[in-house]
Amino acid sequence: MRTIELRGDEVILIDQTQLPLRLVRIKCRSAEEVAEAIEQMKIRGAPALAAAAAMALAITAVKSRARTKGQLLRELERAGRRIGRTRPTAVNLFVGLERALAAARSAADVEDVRKAVVREAEAIAEEDVKVNRKIGENGAMLMEDGDVVLTHCNAGSLATVDYGTALGVIRAAHSSGKKIEVIATETRPLLQGARLTAWELSREGIPVRVVTDGMVGYLMAKGMIDKVVVGADRIAANGDAANKIGTYSIAVLAKEHRIPFYIAAPTSTVDLKVKTGAEIPIEERRPEEVIFFRGVRVVPKGVKVFNPAFDITPARYITAFITERGVVKPGELSKLFKS
Amino acid sequence: MRTIELRGDEVILIDQTQLPLRLVRIKCRSAEEVAEAIEQMKIRGAPALAAAAAMALAITAVKSRARTKGQLLRELERAGRRIGRTRPTAVNLFVGLERALAAARSAADVEDVRKAVVREAEAIAEEDVKVNRKIGENGAMLMEDGDVVLTHCNAGSLATVDYGTALGVIRAAHSSGKKIEVIATETRPLLQGARLTAWELSREGIPVRVVTDGMVGYLMAKGMIDKVVVGADRIAANGDAANKIGTYSIAVLAKEHRIPFYIAAPTSTVDLKVKTGAEIPIEERRPEEVIFFRGVRVVPKGVKVFNPAFDITPARYITAFITERGVVKPGELSKLFKS
Repeated sequence: MRTIELRGDEVILIDQTQLPLRLVRIKCRSAEEVAEAIEQMKIRGAPALAAAAAMALAITAVKSRARTKGQLLRELERAGRRIGRTRPTAVNLFVGLERALAAARSAADVEDVRKAVVREAEAIAEEDVKVNRKIGENGAMLMEDGDVVLTHCNAGSLATVDYGTALGVIRAAHSSGKKIEVIATETRPLLQGARLTAWELSREGIPVRVVTDGMVGYLMAKGMIDKVVVGADRIAANGDAANKIGTYSIAVLAKEHRIPFYIAAPTSTVDLKVKTGAEIPIEERRPEEVIFFRGVRVVPKGVKVFNPAFDITPARYITAFITERGVVKPGELSKLFKS
Repeated sequence: MRTIELRGDEVILIDQTQLPLRLVRIKCRSAEEVAEAIEQMKIRGAPALAAAAAMALAITAVKSRARTKGQLLRELERAGRRIGRTRPTAVNLFVGLERALAAARSAADVEDVRKAVVREAEAIAEEDVKVNRKIGENGAMLMEDGDVVLTHCNAGSLATVDYGTALGVIRAAHSSGKKIEVIATETRPLLQGARLTAWELSREGIPVRVVTDGMVGYLMAKGMIDKVVVGADRIAANGDAANKIGTYSIAVLAKEHRIPFYIAAPTSTVDLKVKTGAEIPIEERRPEEVIFFRGVRVVPKGVKVFNPAFDITPARYITAFITERGVVKPGELSKLFKS
């Protein structure tokens, strides 16, 4: 099951805001519609956003009435700017845009641009699935039979085109015959852990339990967690990693309890232009996400909230990064980029 | 405004499950009704439960048709057992029961028992308010002008008869003219921070912001928290403290960021019969509290959850206890009980 697909002049994606109650696919017919789906988090997850961004440009190209390459490039750049304004933290979205635009620029003429952008968007999607399988394979070797693995938010099929990064590791370990149990933090405010991770894993028969974000310390103190595996939205050159808000707290707790803390992510999530986590932009989302839950007010009128969507886990809390090119310690990230 | 009051043969209490949307008082006409209100968390908070338990016995005594002291004592003991089965963690509930029963036992005859239990329930309520004021006074000295104080769950007026423990400290510091800002964690699953703490403080004009439980590490790393003050449900002789689930995670984060972590509680919360936190019973509540978020399912069908209502913060994470008898380090708890 693909989270997102390019079909002709449409991008078809699972509306993740409706899970776990309903599995509904929606059609986006323009880059604007893709941008809105991203903003509303109908699609989310760093690797999935790379595909969404490229596919948004692909349908822009397919539908365009541009007569010249230059005209079409300008349309694509405009669409790219719109997509680029949706969410600032996950670098993959910008990587997806850049790859699609680079393909467009190197094409010969307007017809070639159309084909090149579609081909690139499809390539990004196909690569993502392969990369995730490889991340899974590499990470599965770190998982032991009987492990209870805690994960935060959703770094699964639904955060990627298919298979997942952190959940890819769990899937691969499970498929290899190891008995793995998962503890999924519900991940307030948008509950991706409760809604998405639990849904994905339970339908594949992988044992999963949901806990509130505040229960992590309790479970660790009780010796109920063997390993932590999460995804990432952007990894700085020094190994600091941005991921869903709450990740940093879990990393500190893992260190305090001497529990290995792994980040599973494609190498495309590493942003070598960014030296440390302090340079990664952190998206602040609408206060209503914290104030209301599905229409019911939980915070009194007039009371303000904070709603940062991500936090930074400094490299010193990260045991290793699990990538498609291998497992490396934070200090060794540069090894992944030597040919 | 009293959270709970004894009026003749009724216990009047604020139904906290309806806050912050509605401020509604309900009448409990029997110990059974008080027990149900406690189980449903219409009233909660360790010191408030001491008053609720004693008042439940008071109305049992007032309404009883017992003709002999022995008969009435048996009725009170039966009501006490019912109340004692509601929630196991907060020691104050048992202290409230024991005080009311001891008063009953030392009375001369059946009429005296009635009066003695009512008097004792009223005394517990009055003492609670005085003790909280004194806790506030003692704790206010630790707060500095301009401090941003993080608190978890609700250890306010609503957790006590009036004024509060952790929020009493904040109230006292605020009243003394210090500029104090509060960050309240929403406190999943039942959102006492978002619903109750934010409501209490905002109606008194004390600046408060709500965050999700997963945001604490982020805020601390950003240098946005100066101190942590929380309540407690039971404190062991060695200084380990049980409090609302999520407290332990916050304590670990506070230590990592060298932020003082205070527990504000009456000395009646110290249970010297319990040597360490490992002996404190931790209530596991209904899974539905995690599965549904205010009536809307968030965890897919068939997926299990954990729902421990409390966790234990080991003494080594606690900077000091703020009590009505003074501020002491965890290793000095016994000092409070020397006459």
